Amino acid sequence: MASSSKPEASMLWGGRFTGKLDPLMQKYNNSITFDCVLYKEDILGSIAFARANAKAGIITDEEFNTIESGLHMVKKEWESNTFEIKTSDEDIHTANERRLCEIIGKKGKEVGGKLHSGRSRNEQVVCDMRMWLRQELRDIEQHLVSFLRVIAARAEQDIDYIMPGYTHLQRAQPIRWSHWLLSYGFAFAADLERLREVISRVNRNPLGCGALAGNPFNLDRDMITKELEFEGLLWNSMGGVADRDFVTETLQWGSMLMQHVSRWAEDLIIYSTAEFGFVHLADAYSTGSSLMPQKKNPDSLELLRGKSGRAFGHMAGFMMTQKGLASTYNKDLQESIEPMLDHVKTVADSIQIANGVLSTLTANPDKMRAALDPFMLATDVADYLVLKGVPFRETHHTSGRCVAKSEELGIPMNELSLEQFKAIDHRFEEDIFDAFSYEASVERRSAKGGTSKSSVLEQIKVLQGMLG
Amino acid sequence: MASSSKPEASMLWGGRFTGKLDPLMQKYNNSITFDCVLYKEDILGSIAFARANAKAGIITDEEFNTIESGLHMVKKEWESNTFEIKTSDEDIHTANERRLCEIIGKKGKEVGGKLHSGRSRNEQVVCDMRMWLRQELRDIEQHLVSFLRVIAARAEQDIDYIMPGYTHLQRAQPIRWSHWLLSYGFAFAADLERLREVISRVNRNPLGCGALAGNPFNLDRDMITKELEFEGLLWNSMGGVADRDFVTETLQWGSMLMQHVSRWAEDLIIYSTAEFGFVHLADAYSTGSSLMPQKKNPDSLELLRGKSGRAFGHMAGFMMTQKGLASTYNKDLQESIEPMLDHVKTVADSIQIANGVLSTLTANPDKMRAALDPFMLATDVADYLVLKGVPFRETHHTSGRCVAKSEELGIPMNELSLEQFKAIDHRFEEDIFDAFSYEASVERRSAKGGTSKSSVLEQIKVLQGMLG
Amino acid sequence: MASSSKPEASMLWGGRFTGKLDPLMQKYNNSITFDCVLYKEDILGSIAFARANAKAGIITDEEFNTIESGLHMVKKEWESNTFEIKTSDEDIHTANERRLCEIIGKKGKEVGGKLHSGRSRNEQVVCDMRMWLRQELRDIEQHLVSFLRVIAARAEQDIDYIMPGYTHLQRAQPIRWSHWLLSYGFAFAADLERLREVISRVNRNPLGCGALAGNPFNLDRDMITKELEFEGLLWNSMGGVADRDFVTETLQWGSMLMQHVSRWAEDLIIYSTAEFGFVHLADAYSTGSSLMPQKKNPDSLELLRGKSGRAFGHMAGFMMTQKGLASTYNKDLQESIEPMLDHVKTVADSIQIANGVLSTLTANPDKMRAALDPFMLATDVADYLVLKGVPFRETHHTSGRCVAKSEELGIPMNELSLEQFKAIDHRFEEDIFDAFSYEASVERRSAKGGTSKSSVLEQIKVLQGMLG
Amino acid sequence: MASSSKPEASMLWGGRFTGKLDPLMQKYNNSITFDCVLYKEDILGSIAFARANAKAGIITDEEFNTIESGLHMVKKEWESNTFEIKTSDEDIHTANERRLCEIIGKKGKEVGGKLHSGRSRNEQVVCDMRMWLRQELRDIEQHLVSFLRVIAARAEQDIDYIMPGYTHLQRAQPIRWSHWLLSYGFAFAADLERLREVISRVNRNPLGCGALAGNPFNLDRDMITKELEFEGLLWNSMGGVADRDFVTETLQWGSMLMQHVSRWAEDLIIYSTAEFGFVHLADAYSTGSSLMPQKKNPDSLELLRGKSGRAFGHMAGFMMTQKGLASTYNKDLQESIEPMLDHVKTVADSIQIANGVLSTLTANPDKMRAALDPFMLATDVADYLVLKGVPFRETHHTSGRCVAKSEELGIPMNELSLEQFKAIDHRFEEDIFDAFSYEASVERRSAKGGTSKSSVLEQIKVLQGMLG
Repeated sequence: MASSSKPEASMLWGGRFTGKLDPLMQKYNNSITFDCVLYKEDILGSIAFARANAKAGIITDEEFNTIESGLHMVKKEWESNTFEIKTSDEDIHTANERRLCEIIGKKGKEVGGKLHSGRSRNEQVVCDMRMWLRQELRDIEQHLVSFLRVIAARAEQDIDYIMPGYTHLQRAQPIRWSHWLLSYGFAFAADLERLREVISRVNRNPLGCGALAGNPFNLDRDMITKELEFEGLLWNSMGGVADRDFVTETLQWGSMLMQHVSRWAEDLIIYSTAEFGFVHLADAYSTGSSLMPQKKNPDSLELLRGKSGRAFGHMAGFMMTQKGLASTYNKDLQESIEPMLDHVKTVADSIQIANGVLSTLTANPDKMRAALDPFMLATDVADYLVLKGVPFRETHHTSGRCVAKSEELGIPMNELSLEQFKAIDHRFEEDIFDAFSYEASVERRSAKGGTSKSSVLEQIKVLQGMLG
Repeated sequence: MASSSKPEASMLWGGRFTGKLDPLMQKYNNSITFDCVLYKEDILGSIAFARANAKAGIITDEEFNTIESGLHMVKKEWESNTFEIKTSDEDIHTANERRLCEIIGKKGKEVGGKLHSGRSRNEQVVCDMRMWLRQELRDIEQHLVSFLRVIAARAEQDIDYIMPGYTHLQRAQPIRWSHWLLSYGFAFAADLERLREVISRVNRNPLGCGALAGNPFNLDRDMITKELEFEGLLWNSMGGVADRDFVTETLQWGSMLMQHVSRWAEDLIIYSTAEFGFVHLADAYSTGSSLMPQKKNPDSLELLRGKSGRAFGHMAGFMMTQKGLASTYNKDLQESIEPMLDHVKTVADSIQIANGVLSTLTANPDKMRAALDPFMLATDVADYLVLKGVPFRETHHTSGRCVAKSEELGIPMNELSLEQFKAIDHRFEEDIFDAFSYEASVERRSAKGGTSKSSVLEQIKVLQGMLG
Repeated sequence: MASSSKPEASMLWGGRFTGKLDPLMQKYNNSITFDCVLYKEDILGSIAFARANAKAGIITDEEFNTIESGLHMVKKEWESNTFEIKTSDEDIHTANERRLCEIIGKKGKEVGGKLHSGRSRNEQVVCDMRMWLRQELRDIEQHLVSFLRVIAARAEQDIDYIMPGYTHLQRAQPIRWSHWLLSYGFAFAADLERLREVISRVNRNPLGCGALAGNPFNLDRDMITKELEFEGLLWNSMGGVADRDFVTETLQWGSMLMQHVSRWAEDLIIYSTAEFGFVHLADAYSTGSSLMPQKKNPDSLELLRGKSGRAFGHMAGFMMTQKGLASTYNKDLQESIEPMLDHVKTVADSIQIANGVLSTLTANPDKMRAALDPFMLATDVADYLVLKGVPFRETHHTSGRCVAKSEELGIPMNELSLEQFKAIDHRFEEDIFDAFSYEASVERRSAKGGTSKSSVLEQIKVLQGMLG
Repeated sequence: MASSSKPEASMLWGGRFTGKLDPLMQKYNNSITFDCVLYKEDILGSIAFARANAKAGIITDEEFNTIESGLHMVKKEWESNTFEIKTSDEDIHTANERRLCEIIGKKGKEVGGKLHSGRSRNEQVVCDMRMWLRQELRDIEQHLVSFLRVIAARAEQDIDYIMPGYTHLQRAQPIRWSHWLLSYGFAFAADLERLREVISRVNRNPLGCGALAGNPFNLDRDMITKELEFEGLLWNSMGGVADRDFVTETLQWGSMLMQHVSRWAEDLIIYSTAEFGFVHLADAYSTGSSLMPQKKNPDSLELLRGKSGRAFGHMAGFMMTQKGLASTYNKDLQESIEPMLDHVKTVADSIQIANGVLSTLTANPDKMRAALDPFMLATDVADYLVLKGVPFRETHHTSGRCVAKSEELGIPMNELSLEQFKAIDHRFEEDIFDAFSYEASVERRSAKGGTSKSSVLEQIKVLQGMLG
């Protein structure tokens, strides 16, 4: 005889009492608290599905009209915040259908009950999610374009500011502040390019897939595709209901974008320290301290940096959820919705905050210039000799000796005398002192992609061309 | 001249308009929507801090009394759901202090304003979090103990059920169902052991750390430790405010527990397929299909398995947030609260659901037994010869040939004749047929930790001894 | 006075002794043990760079010829396994340059020393990586196309096998085995589409970016782009040296592909259990047990599934490495190479193993059919009434009552009598028994994407069209 | 009839040709290339197992002696680098057993073949791993203690250096450099505490678990436990072979330690910029630039920071591998070995490098002091009024107005006149100027855990007490 599963037995075991219903399980299972955000897409999808069912002869045109107008009323209730969620509304699909039946009234059971003919929640939920997500991603696309325009505009306006460029966070070579701006600009532009690819894959039609095996009433899926403005079909019904790659791809995309944000924020946090002082955040994006009266902290940038972790967590978590999952729909996939919602919000907000920060940031070119030091021109000294035909490996050592000499003498490298230069290498001549110009140094980097003014202006054009 | 940061400038750049205030930034920055859950700990911490300040002479006893009774009134408002959050309440700390001042009335500014003497939000938030978390973890400890009791009780009750044990999901050797139950029992018991270690490290006192450099009024931190029932001090004030390892450790702990849950659920999902049929979930933990009338799906188990991803995501995300963060408090750390809240809820709910599932599960010993097949005793056949002195490597091959023979003849291995056995190895004798008993096979595994009845009963005792 | 850093001081502190050199630090820092795999790309990149330097007048044509022929000799040494790595060879770049100078001989210091004029290791390493990776990804593209061809071919050949389709791992509706094959086929085809997008972004030219600020000798970067067959330029020199997104994107891509592999493997592992028995792995992809003579384990599938974790680990780890990194090159980025190498190998091997497994897999249509049961047609029973105009919600309940009736009577649903059907709903007629055909059921799913023969054949065509 | 799996069929499908053997599958499956590192543990485990088998009467004492001395010879071959791995040696277990049989010679098949009696590779591999890992972790424990001693020693020696303490990377309050050192000291000391807990759980005996069901020969597992110096038994044989939590726990532990390393390195990288200049790395831990002669980069710290990602990747990847895995041994678990090996090496090396860096670091107290500015004493100004009975909320505003006044006048806050102070708040008196002492400020933070000299010295003692 089978081991008993009656509540009494469970009490014997000291387990949680569970009668017919475990209220905790209800909550654990229900999704209405978060998937209600999909109400509009759920309704539009239902209308399109019903219309196709009418065309297929599964419901009459009159029945369709009743369903359509009923669903529009449900939609209005959501829009006017008068829709009442009932305890029995497990998810947005059952909630909408329940309300539709109530609205249709007497005919409700008859007509409303036809809404689901040949349709499964498996295809329905994923249709809702795809429609919702494509719109959110298009909004993000606009935020990103707007942010890139600010980057380009500041790069153009601030083009004359020269600052230290760093590698390993050590002063390396003089660069234009605009060059720094654009270095992130191109990273974000690549994000934009990728986003457009992602949107295209999100925007596919799963309706007509059934629970897994397809639609039994020969539904015209292309008609639904067109009505719901999808770019194309999901071509295999089992894949269509199981596939959450459109979510994963979005999360991977957003995680990478947020990594760019985290590096951008890190730079600006460092640049806004007292020690660097290159930039100054607007008050709107800073906060004070509860204890220290003098403090002004770059909270906005720190949140941006910190939320890159949150965005990554959505992705890592949801990839874990999917790992090794058996074919088609499993309830595990319900766990795709919340990370998607929070991720999209995190990314959308973050781009806008970053835009606000950059739009209102004060750059301090005097501090930037003050941080330049002649050692940063050591490469230019080496290059000087290269142009006189000396092998670079040798000029690199020679320049290194000039650095050492000036450190030994405790004077800036550009204050070494010509004799001192010549003592190190006889090929130094009077014009070596021309090397010690930060402007000349940046202008020398005039190959494509370099930090000269013409190169930077060209980059701005290229970037703008990517915004489309 | 510095690059302008005025709103007009930002408009020129096409950026988001931002005047003094960016409403999106307010939302992005505020934590009151989620940290209000810490209201009680915030109040108790404030009282303890004020008491220590009274002892140190920073406030008078009368002032302390005013503060204390005022804070108790604030607490009551929260408890009775009458506390009104104002737009200016950035976080729970400012909300409670703001309300305290209002309650104290005229004297508010004077006395309430002393609450924060020598205290920083940096130490305050982490005190609240630690107090809150230790309680949640103690609750989880109880859920876990309760679940382990059910495991032990079922293992004891169902001890006579024999089922196939699997490796590589292929039938391997007969085992007791109780042995399977206990294999997870010991994994969860190790979780319990680890949890207790984690709680001890969570339960340390950060109050008195100041913003980072320590308390300037020679506060008696030991007194606070005692009042708030911490186990000990955080010994370095910079570390005290920056340390979120107690969160990370909790998330790592919970992720590992949820991995155990995911494997346990996977087994039960497989065991509840039509093909295996070993167990049957109670209705309370199953759901039907919107399309397919015959379906009964193990949704509870799938959610448990799926949420292991969510739990991992919290951990991975928050570890990302902390990576490479500079010393002490940075606003990035605000991102520690939400994952902590959701993680603790996910884990607590999941253990209770798992408990409910197991308490009400029907085990089907007939199906288990039907799935045993004589090939699973091939090792016993090999062992038979080992006991006759034949090297195992040889008996392994010999037994393999018996398997092959019975496959060739299309009969179960135990229906080979003695002659057929002897033809393979002359050392087989009449008693070989005694090897073909599933009961005898499991009873033979009587070394500690094995699947014999006595070993399993010993395991149950050991497990119960770990519950404490 | 500054705190001393002399070895003696460190000994006082009890620290590790460190003289001028810490041998452990050498090893920790060096990359030659793994980046030597990039030798060819390093040499081709150097030649292209030198050619551009010749064009720019930085080196003479004769010097270029000496460099080019010298580098070809270095390349031959690698190819013939005669290149000797010296202790001083920190990385592949220094190793190749060192050897070039030796080979050129007397003129070495003079000419070889010019190889690096205006070039930084920052741009060099990333050029090597991009060239190497694009080739590996193209090879993977071929493996993937080959795997997809096998999927399509098997789907075509095995089109008549009907098996249970599962949702929640519970029997749901009959499907074609080919439909299952194609469900993964379309997931892998999407991987292929994404891969091509990734390759295009990998294949960009960083040479000419310098250390960070650009090239000072007005190098013709387009000429290099053409010689090295890149698709285009990296447009900002700071971004060009710092950007490892091409690695991250590859790791994200591979992690998603491996998730598909993990789910595919999971299905096949379950299908190859004794309990399901739908498929049988070839011996080449199975292994036995050291203890249990009868075992045949699907090790190949388990490794495929397990390695999805490894692939994810590369991605998660490297994203962590990059988080919050300050601008341009930091040595942290050296950590991009090893995960890239192991990831690419893991993915390439896994696709080929999966191909081998599928190519040699025995499908067992008899077992598949035996696992079908009439309850799986409950939806068809409901659909039957839908076609008679009954609302689906009602037919769903009606069909559920038929299921319950047959469970109550302990007979298959198709053995209920017409009277028994009519007792449940009077609209059932004689033709209800036509519903109980698995063939008819799958053929009814004839909308696009469904499991009918025509739909499946159409899917095969669509899939083949994606291989390009 | 079943779909054919013959090579010819696979060729028809265009699949990879596979005869009896797929050489790629061999490589994909074999572990000998990495698990050979476990040779010693494998041999010691085999001896202990054989001894227990002798006691149980499964083998004779003479047979045991032959096995034992043979295994010692195999061990010597490994130690002297003369062990030859054969193509057929799939893993370290088969390699050692194969070689043992060869060494024993004629009796090999007879006696060597008894080595495996009642033992499975499932229990063997995990025994090897646990023994190997406990030793590696004990070595790491020593490295960590040594690093902590250096931290404590430097904190003691450098106790008089005062530097800016930062929150949000903005100057906050003066602290002792030693206080900073100890803030990480306590984080690493918690790592030490956790490590000891982990080691204890790693150090459990799985031998005697069999393939999954336990040992059939009533083996004395306690005897093995004692011989192999385990702390206790794994109490359930199914769990014993499936459990890789000891690896996961190690990886979680190491990932957290590496996060501390990443934050510590980040601070030091920032402190070693030209702009901060607080510390200076020894040459042994810095490297130059291939292009820029003046550069000295903190490569050691960057690698430390970067490798925190690698360490996290091991953990994230392996947790993914285990997710949702069915009970007991699955080949997926082979993927536990490589991440464990690389992780342990990464962590062990990193602690030693960090130790070397800190041991040889030059601290620059003059630069530290120069970075202090009077605004950092604004809290002390507020505290001054608190001690006069003014509510902190008010003093905070008052001090803020002093900050604003001095910014307005462009003079340091401590150069405001008494009149100017009094104009802001009449309660300021002559002794306000005493507040403007950095020494006094740090000394005021004398509560436990603060930055005063006595508090810091107490912390050093507490820390040393934790090293054990």
